[in-house]
Formats: sequence, structure tokens, C-alpha cells
Amino acid sequence: MVNVGVIGAGVIGQDHIRRLQRVLAGASVVAVTDTDGARAAAVANEYGVPIVCGTGEELIGHPEVDAVVVASWGGTHEQYVLGSIAAAKPVFCEKPLATTSAACLNVVAAEVESGRRLVQVGFMRRYDPAYRSLKSIIDAGEVGLPLMAHCVHRNSTVPDSFTSAMMINDAAIHEFDLLRWLFADDIVAAQVIQPRHNPAAREGVSDPLLVLLQLGQGAWANVEVSMNAQYGYDIRCEVVGSSGTVALPEVARPVTKLAGTLSSRVPVDWRDRFVTAYDLELQDWLGACSRGESTGPSAWDGYLATAVSEAAEAALLSGALEAVIFDERPNLYA
Amino acid sequence: MVNVGVIGAGVIGQDHIRRLQRVLAGASVVAVTDTDGARAAAVANEYGVPIVCGTGEELIGHPEVDAVVVASWGGTHEQYVLGSIAAAKPVFCEKPLATTSAACLNVVAAEVESGRRLVQVGFMRRYDPAYRSLKSIIDAGEVGLPLMAHCVHRNSTVPDSFTSAMMINDAAIHEFDLLRWLFADDIVAAQVIQPRHNPAAREGVSDPLLVLLQLGQGAWANVEVSMNAQYGYDIRCEVVGSSGTVALPEVARPVTKLAGTLSSRVPVDWRDRFVTAYDLELQDWLGACSRGESTGPSAWDGYLATAVSEAAEAALLSGALEAVIFDERPNLYA
Amino acid sequence: MVNVGVIGAGVIGQDHIRRLQRVLAGASVVAVTDTDGARAAAVANEYGVPIVCGTGEELIGHPEVDAVVVASWGGTHEQYVLGSIAAAKPVFCEKPLATTSAACLNVVAAEVESGRRLVQVGFMRRYDPAYRSLKSIIDAGEVGLPLMAHCVHRNSTVPDSFTSAMMINDAAIHEFDLLRWLFADDIVAAQVIQPRHNPAAREGVSDPLLVLLQLGQGAWANVEVSMNAQYGYDIRCEVVGSSGTVALPEVARPVTKLAGTLSSRVPVDWRDRFVTAYDLELQDWLGACSRGESTGPSAWDGYLATAVSEAAEAALLSGALEAVIFDERPNLYA
Amino acid sequence: MVNVGVIGAGVIGQDHIRRLQRVLAGASVVAVTDTDGARAAAVANEYGVPIVCGTGEELIGHPEVDAVVVASWGGTHEQYVLGSIAAAKPVFCEKPLATTSAACLNVVAAEVESGRRLVQVGFMRRYDPAYRSLKSIIDAGEVGLPLMAHCVHRNSTVPDSFTSAMMINDAAIHEFDLLRWLFADDIVAAQVIQPRHNPAAREGVSDPLLVLLQLGQGAWANVEVSMNAQYGYDIRCEVVGSSGTVALPEVARPVTKLAGTLSSRVPVDWRDRFVTAYDLELQDWLGACSRGESTGPSAWDGYLATAVSEAAEAALLSGALEAVIFDERPNLYA
Repeated sequence: MVNVGVIGAGVIGQDHIRRLQRVLAGASVVAVTDTDGARAAAVANEYGVPIVCGTGEELIGHPEVDAVVVASWGGTHEQYVLGSIAAAKPVFCEKPLATTSAACLNVVAAEVESGRRLVQVGFMRRYDPAYRSLKSIIDAGEVGLPLMAHCVHRNSTVPDSFTSAMMINDAAIHEFDLLRWLFADDIVAAQVIQPRHNPAAREGVSDPLLVLLQLGQGAWANVEVSMNAQYGYDIRCEVVGSSGTVALPEVARPVTKLAGTLSSRVPVDWRDRFVTAYDLELQDWLGACSRGESTGPSAWDGYLATAVSEAAEAALLSGALEAVIFDERPNLYA
Repeated sequence: MVNVGVIGAGVIGQDHIRRLQRVLAGASVVAVTDTDGARAAAVANEYGVPIVCGTGEELIGHPEVDAVVVASWGGTHEQYVLGSIAAAKPVFCEKPLATTSAACLNVVAAEVESGRRLVQVGFMRRYDPAYRSLKSIIDAGEVGLPLMAHCVHRNSTVPDSFTSAMMINDAAIHEFDLLRWLFADDIVAAQVIQPRHNPAAREGVSDPLLVLLQLGQGAWANVEVSMNAQYGYDIRCEVVGSSGTVALPEVARPVTKLAGTLSSRVPVDWRDRFVTAYDLELQDWLGACSRGESTGPSAWDGYLATAVSEAAEAALLSGALEAVIFDERPNLYA
Repeated sequence: MVNVGVIGAGVIGQDHIRRLQRVLAGASVVAVTDTDGARAAAVANEYGVPIVCGTGEELIGHPEVDAVVVASWGGTHEQYVLGSIAAAKPVFCEKPLATTSAACLNVVAAEVESGRRLVQVGFMRRYDPAYRSLKSIIDAGEVGLPLMAHCVHRNSTVPDSFTSAMMINDAAIHEFDLLRWLFADDIVAAQVIQPRHNPAAREGVSDPLLVLLQLGQGAWANVEVSMNAQYGYDIRCEVVGSSGTVALPEVARPVTKLAGTLSSRVPVDWRDRFVTAYDLELQDWLGACSRGESTGPSAWDGYLATAVSEAAEAALLSGALEAVIFDERPNLYA
Repeated sequence: MVNVGVIGAGVIGQDHIRRLQRVLAGASVVAVTDTDGARAAAVANEYGVPIVCGTGEELIGHPEVDAVVVASWGGTHEQYVLGSIAAAKPVFCEKPLATTSAACLNVVAAEVESGRRLVQVGFMRRYDPAYRSLKSIIDAGEVGLPLMAHCVHRNSTVPDSFTSAMMINDAAIHEFDLLRWLFADDIVAAQVIQPRHNPAAREGVSDPLLVLLQLGQGAWANVEVSMNAQYGYDIRCEVVGSSGTVALPEVARPVTKLAGTLSSRVPVDWRDRFVTAYDLELQDWLGACSRGESTGPSAWDGYLATAVSEAAEAALLSGALEAVIFDERPNLYA
């Protein structure tokens, strides 16, 4: 049984607490904290969490807490992950690892200095069964040498606070991580194209975008990012190899024939689409915690996803192909 | 150039005239007749047919007519096909070949006596590219020994004049012919199940039906017949073999994603679904005519489809499994 | 935390122990028993189960055991379920509830006498997300009045010990339960057709079968049962309503294009297909246990599935339509 | 009956002659010519073409010839189309209209001077039923304002003589025309990305390519061009609108389930994929000829497709976004 403390009791934090308390085996949420203390108390009450801490630092240091989940606002991730590393406690950090690549590097440095992996970053799509199967087909060489990828990342709608930069560092960042993982390669440059503005998007937000990514060994990927697709949540990925292609399937929902039309429902949002991935992700983390290991997307992966985001954000402004700037990989992440 | 005379200028007759005059190479419609003389004249005028005959017999005997298309009311098919055989002219007869198996046998006998095939029956589905591909996969042994078939025959709606018997002898008769063709076997017995009445169907009509068919070598097929499916025209066929299965694909129409739904349009009716099959069917017939041959579904096929219909109609009344009664196959159809 | 005792440590018993110990939240397997004591001990050791009981009765009576899972041989289900009811402990019983409808009625009578539901039967497909979505579409009236269902139940292969009767009472029994659930109706009669023997099946086993089922309000369903389909595990269900149809989708696996072919993998067996359903089934049972309730498929459902099996087995022998014989429904199951 | 003369008796010329003589109604091929006189004579013999001309000019001028099909080598298109215009005879010209935009402009100028449209360019995809249906959905506003398109153009393999430039001016040129047609807009700039080289492609050929196209109203399209996809011929197009998307369906071929795999065949080449489009294209042309009109893709469309090709070829060399340079549209093409 892993005793978990959760920092942040917002939507995603509550969802993780629910998952740990009611869905997955082997975990007990023993402590929670939130900048809104009343919210923390209410969530603790609802899910039977015995301890409410006043701060993240207090939670990390609490002797009952074996492992930490960081689900607070992105700007606070760095400090809580660094704190967890300092306390030598395994930490699961929602993406992004930190808001700048420099901050991510601080985490990497601390973890390297600690001598072992303690951090898992919440790129849950690596746990999605369809993506995993896609990767296994690529890794088996079935489609030959991977040359290209065509990706689509569409949300039905987003809050008014969603900016053009968030289309990259909050949405497309998932693809940045996945493409590195699928191609077993680094992304070395990014270009961003701004097609005709979707009138359903807020004025001033460049929606949709087409992000072009160059990989280290020469492959290229393109990622359509649409945050106001309106019809639903749609994630696609096709990898084009030298002898064939492989693509994610459409999400399988019952097929109706009605009124002249064959149809099936599209997922409404990321929860609808990736619920299993979230479960498997935390299950894997709990297993690693209980074995004293850390697996899954690493601090290094979190760093590189943010580094690619920074290049893509620069490319959004410049219109040009921008190089991704990143350090040498420490041996810890070999 | 094959000079064709067309008997019957109703919907299907006009469609064949249009096809012969405006779509297919190698034909000229030189004569038309209809019980409604004014309609015959109007159609002749619209499609540039030079000769309007007063009767089918006159048309068959006309020296300008090389080959005959019979598209008149089913009750008249026997006489016109017999007349064409007597005149030694190739004849394409819309299904059914005749309304009773006895009448069909008269045609078979006349054709056998003539010493050569002159008759093609309008089972156009044998020319549908999807069905042909399905058959080629079965014939290649890809799915092993064929054991079963699951078929669906759905119309969106039918006229009020449509009876329970017509669900068999007008609709399911297509499947009777196709199953014989796909399995290269005879249908030897039929049973008919009458599920819950579709309120969209007229009172007194047993809609839908489930027709069960036993084949000579032991395979069984089931055919759902729904004439008031309401949503569109839907024809399906899956053949289950000893090592795998093969099925018709869904008709391919553009795929939209809109309002939470992935969808594509279903064909609206048999024309929408089988337009290519009709073209290829007559094209094949014209080619055979010009070579002095007769290919495609034969009078024997027309006879057996009607014989199976009679057994199925008896089964509809009796509720029991009814044997299909049919003669030995003459050598002409070996 | 529900303390569970598991009777039977074979394949399915072990799988439930694994699920309860390592996958699902809220359970602890505290006791296990098996006719093979050594196997029970080994499984207890592997999964950290503290108590090994000599008999099922001992396990049911053990004070540490709050709830019972019966995963032993079918012939023993009745006694252990009756024992659990006598002990007033919630019991999850793998299908079948008992091997005869008379034995099932004993369970029903005991549960009725106990005054509350304690039994859940392991018809896991009711928890499959695709089936649940299918049912919700039917229940919402989207396809109108349900008139027919077309089902397919194909295994790739089965052990030599698999008999014709097991094609009904071990395989098709799932469809018997599901059709009752989907149509909210009883199955009142069954007929069984024996198509051409699949040479891949053992001599003497009637494989494949086509089972025809009449429902109380007049709908009919047909179920193809193939235990030697060879290509994989394939479960299909289409419900035909008065205004449209709804069907299970194909299982979604990545789509490759290679060597002239578009393809995706088919599930290999029931575990591959229904792993999520098994998880959700036990999760639901645990939730009900912890609330002191019993939900999911009831003893009554188990009784009726077996009653339909008996009619279908009779129909397999007689070739005729056989009525399903069953009692009035006690109020407990209203 | 339109009396057609065909210039060029190679693969595509023979295919058109076959189509005109044996498939379509309303045409008679009365003359043929080829630089290889023996080939012209052999083809004339096979298809029953009465006249063999020594030169294209002779054929164009022949009094028996009502309308001309130009299917010779691309470098000769300009002269024969100009000759046909000079002779006031309708001319169907295989793509490209001419090898340079300057040459295309000569044709446009001649046609404008003639005062009426005489030229149809062989962009047959506009006649493909799936593309037409796609366009009708866009035109009906079902997906809202078109913002983006994702296209794929894959050949299984190409001859060794195929160059990087041909990937643009011979392959992607189809997409250039189609995107203009689908979006009812002009392409104003092109960029070309060269992903990792496919080892199956000849050294020195940049295969695959990703062509990015900017349209006049701000939409962008991307076109993957792969000439050595190996697995088959694959043409895809998805248009992303402001409220939804619409895409070409997969080509429908029977679906088999065999050996663990659900699969269907992919078209092998452009003939397999577009045979119906070729038929409909020429049928439409013949209809226009017989009515004294010219419809379908115009000389202006041919000019612009070549102008976009030139920009894309420049972009292939420069790596930068290159503007498409083109004239004002004459009123004749409004």
C-alpha cells in the first residue's frame, strides 16, 4: 500500500484522488493540500483523506506521506518536485514538469544529483492502449523506417483564457512527448503555420495551427492543433514508414443507422478519450513506487517537451523554422 | 452495335433505355413497346427510339430488332421470353423470369429445345463489384469451406401494395440467386420466421422476416428482409467459412465529423446502391449478344430462384421447413 | 475495504484474485480454498492471501470473510451460493449460477426467503462499455421498437473436451442473458440449426450452430455460435429497431497499411476482448458489497439463462422450436 | 455520336480509345496517330479505328474528326491544343495542359481569342464520386468555413525515371487542381519539406515530400507525396472546416477476418482507384461536345495547376515559401 499525498485539489487533483481511493489497488491518499484550504478540506472529507496540510512543503515533509502527486498550478510544479526530490520521495508531476526549460533543467539537475530517478511526468498518452499498440508495431519494424507522422489534436472548445501559446505548451506538448517516444528520437526544430482563423475561436488566438517538427534522424511530423473543433475531442496519429503506415483507430462506439446516416459518437473530451490511460498511468506509478523504482516519462522527457514548446512558441512569433535548444542527456536517463 | 428492342417503358424499362442509349457503348435502342401506347411514344421521343411497336410480339418479330429486353410486368415475362426464344433472338429478362416455377420450366424447356442459351435474367447483383470480389475471395478458398451466410436486405420503405409474399418473391429472391452463386450449390429447403411487426409497415404485412435457407451440401444462410427499415437501403452479406469470414463492406461515402458524431450517408435505394451493377450487367449482355453468346444468370438460375421463392412462400404460411422442389439440371446449364 | 474469500483457485479464480489484490481499489482477498490444496497454497503465497481454507464451507463461515467469490467447477456453484446466502454474506458467482434450472431455483428460493439480494452472477458482458452504450441507445428509443437481433459468438478454438451442449450452456448462455437485458424481455422459445460441420471442429461436435430465440413480446434473435472460427475471438451484436439499427463496433486496434492490405488485429480470446468488463464487474460488486447492497445480474438472471440453455439443448436434439419453461418472477427481482 | 481523333497511342491513349469504343455511349474513334506509326496502326487495328494519320496536325485537320483527345507526351500538348483551338474543335488534353505556365498561357490566350471554351484538361479526380460528394458537403456549408486540408498522395512504386520534380508536377499537381476546386480559391504560395529519405526510393529523389500550400483566403493545405509507399495506391483528403471535418472514405473492398486479422485490400494503382472517374470524365466531355459546349477543368485550371507546380518546384530548391505567380483571370473563365 503506497501512502500518497496530493498537492492541488482542483479538477485534475480531485480526479487523481478519486482514482487512487476508489479505482486503483495499492494506494491510500493520506494527505491533501490546496491554496484554497476550504477546498482541500472539502475534498479530504469527500474522499476520506485523513490529513489536510497547510502547504505543499508540509505535505511533502509529512512522515505519513510516502509519495507525492503534484497537481497544482503549473507555475508551482518546479518547487514541489524539487522538494520531493530533496525529501527523497517519489513524485508524480502533472505536465508540464515546469513552465520553462531552465526550470525543468533545475529538476533534472537535482534528480541527477540525487543519484536515482524519483520523478514521473504526467504524459498519460504513453499509457493509452492504442498508442502503446501503435508503438509496438513501429518498434517491431512492421512499417519499416519511420519517415513522417501526421497528427491531429482537436478539442471541441476551450475557455476564453486559452491563448495561442497554450495551443503549443498546453495542447501540442502531448504530441511533442509522444513523437519523441514513438520515433525514439529528439525533435530538433519547429515551424508553425497559422491557417485561416476559425471564427469559433476567440479573436487574437491563432486557432487552428499547423506545427511542423523535424526529428534528429530526418523524419518530420506535422500536428494540427485545433482548440475549437466544436464537434468533439479528436486525437489522431499516423506514422508513415518506408514500407507501410500505422495509425490510431477511430474510437470505437456503437454504430447506428438512422435517418439515412451511419454514425457513431465521437469522444467529448480528454477524460472521455483517455480515462483508461490515466488509470494505467497511475497504476504503473504506484507499482514503481512500491518497488522503489521510477518508470514512465522522466524529468528528462518533461524537460525536452518544454524545450520543444519553447522552440515552437518562438516559431509561432517568427514564422521561421526554429531550432530546439537542449542539453546533453545525463546518463541517468540513458 | 446491337440493335435492341425494349418491352415495357415503365420505370425500369426507361432506365434500361437510358442506359443503352446514353451510357453504354455498342447498343442502339431501335424499338420500344408498352401496354400504354402513349407512354411508349413519349419515351421513344425522349430517347430517340425510332420504332414504336403495338405489341411485344410485334417488337420481337421486327426485323430491325436483334435482341430483346423484357422489362414489362412480371406476369408477361414468360410469353415474351418464349417469343424471343422462338425468334432465336437473345433476350434479357428482368427478374423474375416468370411468376411460377412451372412457367419458368416452360422457358427452360424451350431454351433447351432451341439448343443454345438465349436468355439472361436480371440478377444484377452478380455484377456488383463488391459481390464479385466477395465471390472471388470465396472461390480462391481464402475462408475455407463455406459453412454459413448472414444476409440483410433492407429497403427504406415500399409502396402500400407491397405484400408479405413480395418480401420473398420480389426482395429476397435476389439473395436466393446470390447464395446459389456464392456457394456454387442449390438451396434445398426454406423456413421463415416472423419477428415482431414493425409498426412502420402496413398492417397485415409480415415485416420484417427472417428467412432461413438450407443448401445442398449442408450450409445454412439466414436473410433478414425488412422493407420498412426507414433509414435507407442496406444490403449485407457475410460468408462464414471454416477458417475465416468475408463480408461486403459498408458503402463508402465521405466521412464527416460534426456535432459529436462521426457519420457517413447510407444509400437511399437500390439505384443508389447498384447503379454500377446495372451498367455492368447490360454491358456484359451486350458483349455476349455481339459475340452470339449468352452469359450471366441463366433461365435455369431464374427457374431455381422462383422455385426457392415458392418454398419460402409456403414456409411463410406453414411456419415449417419446406423443401425446395426442382427438376434435374439439363446439360445446357452445366 | 471488503474482505473477500475466493472459492476455486483455477484460471478464473486466480484471475479474480489478481484483480482484487492488484487492480481494483477497496478489496482484500483474505482467504482462498481449492479442492487441490497445494494449488490453493501456491496461489495464496503468490498473491499474499493470508488464509487457506480446507473447504468452501469453512471459507464461507470464516469470520474474516465478508464476501465470497465462487469460481469453482460449475457443479459446485449451487452449494457454495446457498452456503453464502445461509451465512448472509454477499456472493459473486461465476456463470452458470447452477448447472440445472431446478438447482438455480433452489438458489432463488433461498435468496427470496432471506429477504434480500445477496447474489451476483458473473455475466460480465453487461459491464462491457460497448454493450452498455448499445443498451443506452436502445433504452433511449433511438432505434424505435426493438424487433430483431443478430449475434455472433466466435471463439478461435476450444479444448477437445468442448461438447455441442457446451456451445449452448457455456458459450451462448452469455447471449441468452444479454438479449434478455437488451430487450428487457424474456426469451420464451428456442430453435437450433446445425449448419455444415466445420472440419476444424472435433467430430461429433455440432460446430457451428445457429440458435434462434423468440422473445416474449415477439422479437426474434439469432446467434451464430462458432467455437473453431480459427481467426480470433469475435463477438457481435446488432439490434434492429423499427426506425433504425445499432451494433457493437469492431474492436479498435491500430490500422496498418502494408503489402496491399489495410488491416487491424482481432482480439485473440475473451480476456483480450473483455478485460475491462471483468474489472468493472468486480468493481461494481465491491461497491455494492461495501454499501450492503447487491446489484448486477441477479440469481433470477442466472436462473433464466440456464432455463433458456435447457430449452436450446432440447432444441438441439429435437430440431424443433422448444418452449422455455420458467416460473413467475418473485417480487424480489422486480 | 461524336467522332473523335486521338493523338498518342501509348498507355493512356489506348485506354481512352478502349473507353470511347467499348465502354461509353455516344462516341466513335475515327482517327488515331502516334510518333510510332506502327503502334498507331496496331492500336487502330485492335480497336477498329478506320483512319491512321501521320501527324497530330493532320488528325486535327481531318474532316472526319469532330473532337480531339491529346494523350501524347507532355511536351507536345501545347501545339496540339493550340492546333485544335485553331481548328475550332473541342479538345480533351491529358494533364498537364503544357509543361510551363508560359506555354499554358499561350493556350489560354488562344482560347480567349477564339471567344469560347474548347479545352478540357484531364484532371479526372474532379469526376470521382467520392471527391464530388466531398465537395458537395463543403459547398453545402456542412463543415462551416474551410480552414485546412490534409492530403496524402501515395503510389506503391514508380519507374526509375521518376524525379523529385515529377513528384510535384506529375503527382501533386492533381492535389493542386483539387484544392483550388474544393476551396473555390487560388493557391498563392508553396513550401516543400523533405523528410527522411525512403530507402525504397532511388538515391537523389526526395521521396517523400510534404508540400504546404497557402490559399488566397488564408486556408492552408498539406500534401504528403510518397511515390514508393510500397503497400499500394492511397489517396486521401480531409477538409477541416470551422464547425467540422469531412474526409474521403477508405476505398470499400470486402472485409475478411483471417488469422487474427481484419483486413481489406488497398487499390494497387491509379487505374484501380479512379477507373470510374476516367469513365465519367470522358462521358461528360462527350456530352459537352455533342451539345457544342465545354465543361470540366478548363485551360485556366490547367494553367494554374502548372503555375502552382512551378512555385512548388522552386520551393523544393529554395526550402522557402515561394509565391505562386499568375495572371488575372480572363472573363471567359469567370
